Amino acid sequence: MAKGTVSPEIIEELKKIVGEKYVYTDKDKLEPYSHDEVTDPHYMKEAQVVVLPASTEEVSKVVKLCYDNDIVMVPRAAGTGLAAGAVAIFGGVIISIERMNKILEIDMDNMVCVTEPGVTTSVLQEEVKKKGLFYAGDPCSGDSCFIGGNVATNAGGNRAVKYGVTREQVMGLEVVTPSGEVVMLGGKFRKNATGYMLMHLYIGSEGTLGIVTKVIVRLVALPKYQMDLLAVFDTLDAAIALTPKVMNAGITPVCVEFMDNASIKQVEIFLNEKLQHSDNGNYIIIQIAGDSEDVLDEQCEIIDELARKNNALDVLVANPAVIWKSRKAYLEADRARSLVFSMEDIVVPLTLIPEAVQLISRLSDKYKVAMHCAGHAGDGNVHIDILKDDRTQEEWEEMLPQIQGEIYEIVARMGGRLSGEHGIGYKRESLLEKYGNPIELELMKKVKRALDPKNIMNPGKVISINDEVPVE
Amino acid sequence: MAKGTVSPEIIEELKKIVGEKYVYTDKDKLEPYSHDEVTDPHYMKEAQVVVLPASTEEVSKVVKLCYDNDIVMVPRAAGTGLAAGAVAIFGGVIISIERMNKILEIDMDNMVCVTEPGVTTSVLQEEVKKKGLFYAGDPCSGDSCFIGGNVATNAGGNRAVKYGVTREQVMGLEVVTPSGEVVMLGGKFRKNATGYMLMHLYIGSEGTLGIVTKVIVRLVALPKYQMDLLAVFDTLDAAIALTPKVMNAGITPVCVEFMDNASIKQVEIFLNEKLQHSDNGNYIIIQIAGDSEDVLDEQCEIIDELARKNNALDVLVANPAVIWKSRKAYLEADRARSLVFSMEDIVVPLTLIPEAVQLISRLSDKYKVAMHCAGHAGDGNVHIDILKDDRTQEEWEEMLPQIQGEIYEIVARMGGRLSGEHGIGYKRESLLEKYGNPIELELMKKVKRALDPKNIMNPGKVISINDEVPVE
Repeated sequence: MAKGTVSPEIIEELKKIVGEKYVYTDKDKLEPYSHDEVTDPHYMKEAQVVVLPASTEEVSKVVKLCYDNDIVMVPRAAGTGLAAGAVAIFGGVIISIERMNKILEIDMDNMVCVTEPGVTTSVLQEEVKKKGLFYAGDPCSGDSCFIGGNVATNAGGNRAVKYGVTREQVMGLEVVTPSGEVVMLGGKFRKNATGYMLMHLYIGSEGTLGIVTKVIVRLVALPKYQMDLLAVFDTLDAAIALTPKVMNAGITPVCVEFMDNASIKQVEIFLNEKLQHSDNGNYIIIQIAGDSEDVLDEQCEIIDELARKNNALDVLVANPAVIWKSRKAYLEADRARSLVFSMEDIVVPLTLIPEAVQLISRLSDKYKVAMHCAGHAGDGNVHIDILKDDRTQEEWEEMLPQIQGEIYEIVARMGGRLSGEHGIGYKRESLLEKYGNPIELELMKKVKRALDPKNIMNPGKVISINDEVPVE
Repeated sequence: MAKGTVSPEIIEELKKIVGEKYVYTDKDKLEPYSHDEVTDPHYMKEAQVVVLPASTEEVSKVVKLCYDNDIVMVPRAAGTGLAAGAVAIFGGVIISIERMNKILEIDMDNMVCVTEPGVTTSVLQEEVKKKGLFYAGDPCSGDSCFIGGNVATNAGGNRAVKYGVTREQVMGLEVVTPSGEVVMLGGKFRKNATGYMLMHLYIGSEGTLGIVTKVIVRLVALPKYQMDLLAVFDTLDAAIALTPKVMNAGITPVCVEFMDNASIKQVEIFLNEKLQHSDNGNYIIIQIAGDSEDVLDEQCEIIDELARKNNALDVLVANPAVIWKSRKAYLEADRARSLVFSMEDIVVPLTLIPEAVQLISRLSDKYKVAMHCAGHAGDGNVHIDILKDDRTQEEWEEMLPQIQGEIYEIVARMGGRLSGEHGIGYKRESLLEKYGNPIELELMKKVKRALDPKNIMNPGKVISINDEVPVE
């Protein structure tokens, strides 16, 4: 059997494992699985079959069936990805974990939550909050993404400065390997020096080494007080430059976010609401949190003073609902203007963000294309939306790789990386191959070959070991 | 050439790379490299040759020479390990990174320190403190261990509850692969979703996948205030049971340490100083830190109340110098009583520590052997010193594996692991093989085979892929 094709017999076997109802082959049911949040048709592919197992045991049986028959598998969580990692570009069976959506245990004494991978991140956050605890992972898509997908992409989000990314929240993972074996990595303990930390290899491997079927995350104490500050500057340089000053003042913010003026203007149009200083402002949003209102007030004063010294146009305590609605609308606002756009997700040392953004802005003039910048100043993660607008798909596909090439060369010179939190998936696989460090890539390929020798677990994503060709 | 033997020609080549002075072959110079902190002669082996490169380039050249000639390499940092990971049990060349001892950069704005691996952990702590910043990694051996060794074993220590272990501090690693290639993994940024996180695979791999030649660690704001509390209980159960109560009260301590009464008595003898409640006490030491003295005072009151409700014999604000001297003397006190002893390093969910310790205590009676418990209650990491005392080496070698077997079966039943922070090395390799999860072990072996196909980078440590036999 050719890899990637699924025979009627296989479909029958799949139905025996998960029940007829949970094997989708009808076009209308398959459509939502043909893409993620990337709206470029280049990164969409109609799925042949989607299977929805309800348990680890069912996942294991499905995987064993595929393994024995050399069938490609594509693990999929909520489909909110931004790198086409969960799209069946190379055919095969999409294994969706959406039915595995139960929180199994909130263990107050060990300060952990044990959950199935299909639980929505915001649901997890809310459930533990009811118990007075805090799950610190917080991707912008928290209302729709699943915790399993967060693990697969090592989702970052807004609280990484203080709490770290998804990786720092995970204490244990149950994984189904490409041959269908089930293994628990890590557990309900913070320390572990028992051999290679495979758990950390699986985190961020985007479903190319196995399928996550259970997650143990750490919980922390809910901070008692929280405050959001908005500082507005007339240049992005000045805005970003505030970040190290705040961190050097002995303050550990929860996050430091930024939006450039073009992004603010676009969000204003999208929300149809006047935003502060939208005429010429660039935003820095700083969230601070802690157990002492006095300390927060002090930190607030320090930040105010630092911002004004840095020639801020305005510094104010922000209404969190308003300011975060604006920040989180960044992506949707750009999508509303130009359905097709490319969202880049670079990381550089935070002090180099101004230079990176300046160099990247020049590309906007050079290619006469709209580019909006926003992101996470506190951890060096810059999102750049490159908008297709009314270009033809052909013009777009010719121009985009040139711009990406120039961006990634800037990033490489700065010691940065292609993706901070969205992952490589299919979208950036060839870009990683081109702009990544060849020694590092060879090591990654060795790992992939070792752990998925048949190359059937989400092949052609992250790294290509076999020059996979997309199915027609 | 047989693997593990080093010819005079090879020694000449080594001298050409690092200089004659930095290739040791004299018995007296080799002696310190024949062991780590494990005092059992079973885990010692006279080294044949030790080479001390001064730079990444020299490390790379040495590794290439060994690779081309199939010679076993044993990377070594300060030799303070507790698992014989850096001892040349299987012969070959010890590559010591002790000359690579410069802090390269304290980058205030990016809040990172870039350092060579041979810098002593406490030196790193002190140097960044001079700049008003804080390096949170803090193994008990901080005054002597190197940061490179911390990375190799993913050293834990005393601040893991609040700040995580070494892994959580590391942002970037320069690594020399088993074939001598140099690669930079990670960098000066908190977020990274650019392919497999090989950096996290290398952290804790105990020099079996390559040699760390540069480390980038994150720095955080120095907490303004700090307080150490000592709560004393008449049973260890009651002592440990305080931990989840404190953490559930909305307090995130820096650490929660414990010492059982036998340990306290032993330390008292060793230090020749009266310790509080040494007659019948079991200690819980809680460190809290933060930016508000008021909040610390509040937390202090809450802990006091919780401890008294839990029938504490005494609760007091401790003199940090005194209490930490006692806690850190645990290992030396046992060594002073019995030069040969085995320090176990299990992890279990923290709520199961009392049950684990109770079951383990019974082994002390069963085998009529002294066993002292202390460790890190806040992260489930329990050290158990099993003392040889006046047994013969033969009796000891017969008894110890039986006790370890019983301990590890208890740990496995509790979903725990063999090592929380000391690593597997050579000492626990066969124990991991016996008591580890076979699926997980097979995955580890696949990774080792993939990244060190010649099996020359610290073979026989952590996992054995070739049934290595120690050299005579």
